Amino acid sequence: MDFLSDNAAGVHPTVLKAVADAAGPEPSGYDADRWSTRLDAAFSALFETPVRAFAVPSGTAANGLGLAALVPGYGGIWCHTEAHIHIDEAGAVPFFTGGASLLLVPGAGGKLGIEALDAAASRHRGDVHQIQPAALSLTQATESGTSYSPDEIAALAGWAKARDLQVHMDGARFANAVAHLGCAPADVTWRAGVDVLSFGCIKNGGMSSEAVILFQPDRAASLPVRRKRAGMMPSKGRFAAAQLLAMIEDGLWLETARGANAGAARIAAAAPSRLLHPVQANEVFLRLTEAERAALRALGFGFYDWELDGPEAARFVVRWDQPPDAVEALAGALAALA
Amino acid sequence: MDFLSDNAAGVHPTVLKAVADAAGPEPSGYDADRWSTRLDAAFSALFETPVRAFAVPSGTAANGLGLAALVPGYGGIWCHTEAHIHIDEAGAVPFFTGGASLLLVPGAGGKLGIEALDAAASRHRGDVHQIQPAALSLTQATESGTSYSPDEIAALAGWAKARDLQVHMDGARFANAVAHLGCAPADVTWRAGVDVLSFGCIKNGGMSSEAVILFQPDRAASLPVRRKRAGMMPSKGRFAAAQLLAMIEDGLWLETARGANAGAARIAAAAPSRLLHPVQANEVFLRLTEAERAALRALGFGFYDWELDGPEAARFVVRWDQPPDAVEALAGALAALA
Amino acid sequence: MDFLSDNAAGVHPTVLKAVADAAGPEPSGYDADRWSTRLDAAFSALFETPVRAFAVPSGTAANGLGLAALVPGYGGIWCHTEAHIHIDEAGAVPFFTGGASLLLVPGAGGKLGIEALDAAASRHRGDVHQIQPAALSLTQATESGTSYSPDEIAALAGWAKARDLQVHMDGARFANAVAHLGCAPADVTWRAGVDVLSFGCIKNGGMSSEAVILFQPDRAASLPVRRKRAGMMPSKGRFAAAQLLAMIEDGLWLETARGANAGAARIAAAAPSRLLHPVQANEVFLRLTEAERAALRALGFGFYDWELDGPEAARFVVRWDQPPDAVEALAGALAALA
Amino acid sequence: MDFLSDNAAGVHPTVLKAVADAAGPEPSGYDADRWSTRLDAAFSALFETPVRAFAVPSGTAANGLGLAALVPGYGGIWCHTEAHIHIDEAGAVPFFTGGASLLLVPGAGGKLGIEALDAAASRHRGDVHQIQPAALSLTQATESGTSYSPDEIAALAGWAKARDLQVHMDGARFANAVAHLGCAPADVTWRAGVDVLSFGCIKNGGMSSEAVILFQPDRAASLPVRRKRAGMMPSKGRFAAAQLLAMIEDGLWLETARGANAGAARIAAAAPSRLLHPVQANEVFLRLTEAERAALRALGFGFYDWELDGPEAARFVVRWDQPPDAVEALAGALAALA
Repeated sequence: MDFLSDNAAGVHPTVLKAVADAAGPEPSGYDADRWSTRLDAAFSALFETPVRAFAVPSGTAANGLGLAALVPGYGGIWCHTEAHIHIDEAGAVPFFTGGASLLLVPGAGGKLGIEALDAAASRHRGDVHQIQPAALSLTQATESGTSYSPDEIAALAGWAKARDLQVHMDGARFANAVAHLGCAPADVTWRAGVDVLSFGCIKNGGMSSEAVILFQPDRAASLPVRRKRAGMMPSKGRFAAAQLLAMIEDGLWLETARGANAGAARIAAAAPSRLLHPVQANEVFLRLTEAERAALRALGFGFYDWELDGPEAARFVVRWDQPPDAVEALAGALAALA
Repeated sequence: MDFLSDNAAGVHPTVLKAVADAAGPEPSGYDADRWSTRLDAAFSALFETPVRAFAVPSGTAANGLGLAALVPGYGGIWCHTEAHIHIDEAGAVPFFTGGASLLLVPGAGGKLGIEALDAAASRHRGDVHQIQPAALSLTQATESGTSYSPDEIAALAGWAKARDLQVHMDGARFANAVAHLGCAPADVTWRAGVDVLSFGCIKNGGMSSEAVILFQPDRAASLPVRRKRAGMMPSKGRFAAAQLLAMIEDGLWLETARGANAGAARIAAAAPSRLLHPVQANEVFLRLTEAERAALRALGFGFYDWELDGPEAARFVVRWDQPPDAVEALAGALAALA
Repeated sequence: MDFLSDNAAGVHPTVLKAVADAAGPEPSGYDADRWSTRLDAAFSALFETPVRAFAVPSGTAANGLGLAALVPGYGGIWCHTEAHIHIDEAGAVPFFTGGASLLLVPGAGGKLGIEALDAAASRHRGDVHQIQPAALSLTQATESGTSYSPDEIAALAGWAKARDLQVHMDGARFANAVAHLGCAPADVTWRAGVDVLSFGCIKNGGMSSEAVILFQPDRAASLPVRRKRAGMMPSKGRFAAAQLLAMIEDGLWLETARGANAGAARIAAAAPSRLLHPVQANEVFLRLTEAERAALRALGFGFYDWELDGPEAARFVVRWDQPPDAVEALAGALAALA
Repeated sequence: MDFLSDNAAGVHPTVLKAVADAAGPEPSGYDADRWSTRLDAAFSALFETPVRAFAVPSGTAANGLGLAALVPGYGGIWCHTEAHIHIDEAGAVPFFTGGASLLLVPGAGGKLGIEALDAAASRHRGDVHQIQPAALSLTQATESGTSYSPDEIAALAGWAKARDLQVHMDGARFANAVAHLGCAPADVTWRAGVDVLSFGCIKNGGMSSEAVILFQPDRAASLPVRRKRAGMMPSKGRFAAAQLLAMIEDGLWLETARGANAGAARIAAAAPSRLLHPVQANEVFLRLTEAERAALRALGFGFYDWELDGPEAARFVVRWDQPPDAVEALAGALAALA
């Protein structure tokens, strides 16, 4: 009964079948095959606007490449102190951008707020002696399992645009946020001012491909060559593209995300007083004493202590393929603790 | 009847099955799953020496990452004027290494030779005002479809070691070279002085994963973090590892390569006087007039003109899954030309 | 009566004369002239140990190049939240190192402390998903005008060495710190565990050259070529070297620093209750209301508001060539405020 | 009697005096002093068009920074096989640009020609798998002591513009070229299509400063911050600016260049049948047997063998401050050889 990570999830049968269906010989390699050439149109339909979409092999790659399209090597990126690009990507942003720096801003519930951004920006002169802010990076859903509303994103993106900053969104769990919000994907991206999105699939039923989505196709000029020189333009590009198409063309991405979110909501409902953050995606952060955590583990539940949220915090992630039994068992165990 | 590229090849059913077998949930992500943790041992067995093996999503990635483990940003890499790292990787080497430069050396048949290296090295002072040579990169099989013998590699690697240079091998078609030579994989790698190998699988029946092999495991210290920050450490690492294991654990990689080589040999035998290079892998380079090329294309054969070899050159690549009929048809058509 | 910055200082006549004396033709360019070839010996004598010394054109260059000799592109550098390398060098560290990240740690009085470092390090897992800490950077004297004692540096360097980290010192005002401490230069550098020092001269009577000092000469292998490819190996190297020699060979660097420190001490003595930090170099940070600051400016005193220290903070920097009259006038004006 | 290098030259008294005149305290640091703030206007006057001018500490720095303003990290730069940026700058171009590659083109007399560029470009597909050409770099005067005429530059720049490439000029000996051509500086730069110029002073009577000149000031947006983060924005910027102003404001740069050129012409006239290249600046390349070279050296003449021009080639560089006696002596010795 493993709630450690959605990276432990399996691959959805539809995705697996799509990969298998692409397995035969194909006259065109790289991005010229029958799957890759459909990516732009499929994502444009999903987002109700013309976009450029590029398959990449990881969320780190998506963030690094997407930010490299926006930010020069001498630029800076405002982001949350707990952003994955800061905490868990081993310096991918300076690697892909040629040296850009992360400018960290704190915020409760994993969210950036205008006030904190203003405070940080007011301490940053921005003259030639300093890092030149060039972008704002948001995470949707956040690292704390919360989701920005369309209005929140529009406000933050507006703050950025007023300062001539580009807006990047790390959407490793974008599907969970959209499923939670019940909005159109466009509402929390380009309509709200987002320029580039890392569209996550792997945690959500995919196998080995995420997508970088550029909402300003004319800014995409450098992305193909940046992707190629980063070793991320696969010679058999159809396998990456087929996964992405399988996820989005018939709404699978939202279906799997809804399932995972429902599990998280079920767990949250079992321990409402323990919640450290609102549950607005597929992650649940709970206040649990050391003894309580030990007791749960003794029952066979796997989860991480989450020291970023304090000494008594634990994180439970619900996968798209989490057995309902396991969710119920955890809910029951949590209810029994109190 | 497409002889354009082995990138057009399908995925071998054994590889596809391995991927499908890994599709369920797996408690451990990244490189801790049951497949990824077997990679080092499997490649160590294949190479008869302890190695470190890292899955990466493309040959460009393998070359870039492997060279980054050997060469500092201020370093230089001796390589052939037609090396893939120079011609077809969009600057991946400077990207991954932080600025290293390629030092180009010509050579017939796609091969580097000691004499040409000596000549180039003698013109390169190597003082502080110049690029600091740090590695020699060989391609096996070469871009001209030839293969270095173990002795040739030993001589070249010896030349490198005498100058304190590391030795890198781009093995996008390593399997074809080994199948042709009939030697042990070790004979054309570490036993001959190679330090890092890009072990190709994708062209040869794989799906989306190549491997970087380090023959001096103690030099591998930086590779895991370099790979992570390059966005190439997949969160569901098992799918990459499973492909590689499927290729090497039961000799599939040599079986598919032998098949492709045999097709190339059949074609070569049909037009021996037209051969531009010895056929020592799965590529055939032929002298064909414009009219002859047009005639072949009219018959339905796909292939590239190959201007690097002159105005009357054409390249035919035989895939591991090339239908024998197509090979026979091409052989017949070539024989009929004369 | 300008107390804005020691960058406003003039050039000491001894330095100017040294430059003029080097103005004739010189058979050897770059680093082979009669001045450049003496640098290592002169700095080795100053530091009582064999060192390598490299002239560079700015403190930013010294820090960037020195850290590049210690830290790989995937590395991290623990430093103070107000460190010049973070606040005022426009991203030079990622530029010179190929992407290294600064890991910020707060501390009163501009100083890093073991407790804060421990706290920060305990939140940094350091696994392959994270920035790999590789160095600790200290500033001596600090940005708050305080100086680390030899024992403090030894403790911090010990903390670093226990974690296999290299130790860098930004010594833009190293002279002022040594003059204040009255210790040997070695006592606050290599004897205490410092590996690389940016030795400042420009603020302290120099013209256009600082020095990078490597206390482990065998680690210096890459520095000459890094410096050359960074465009910092001047073809007429004698002018940079002559400045540095003029500063250190006869103790001028300490003489000018003592003068500046004395001025700062005089000012501090005039307003002891207003001091925001102990005055241990040539900078004085004072609590002054907006009205008081306006009054001082009306009297002709130039200085910066210093918001990093709060809304009522002001910074006064005493130059080596500050006219004693101006110091006395400021001391008098401050005393008269109360 | 040293003809090894113009880097051995002294500093012109006018430049030295300008430095001395700037030695006093100056209220404004960095680029805000009374000298730095005049740079743009002075160079704009010299070039008869509005330009931005930035002082940098070396020719390598000028080339690196200037190209970084034009070329992205994934870009390529067409240049001569003997270009200083390729042969003698230790990889500065990839360092400053974040990885750009040099695309080498041969040419007699150190010059690039349209035919050779066409041939090289025709072999470079330029698709996403390849380096993306972004600039053409010319050297004026060339490494072979020849100078491009205004028409030649216009033709080359036209070739570049037709391919959407920026044009960079390495002008380490720009003064010698202009002095030889007798044209306006504008005629061989922006009027002919040059976008960025490295304006050399150090070899020509300067001390420690060159200039980057941007002829499209709106392209200069990133240069100040690139220069700062490269450690090349001196805190006492007046010393660099004063040197540049002393060189250009009263025509000194052409006066010193004319003197050096005259010396080279005198030497060339003494050995016309030995000339390997036309003498169009201050360098003379001569065919001399090993015995002849030994004889000249026995007479006390210093010069380099020049293997790039063959086994019997020697290079003589005339400095701006070369004693006329030495020139006459060399001319006499050469005449006596035959």
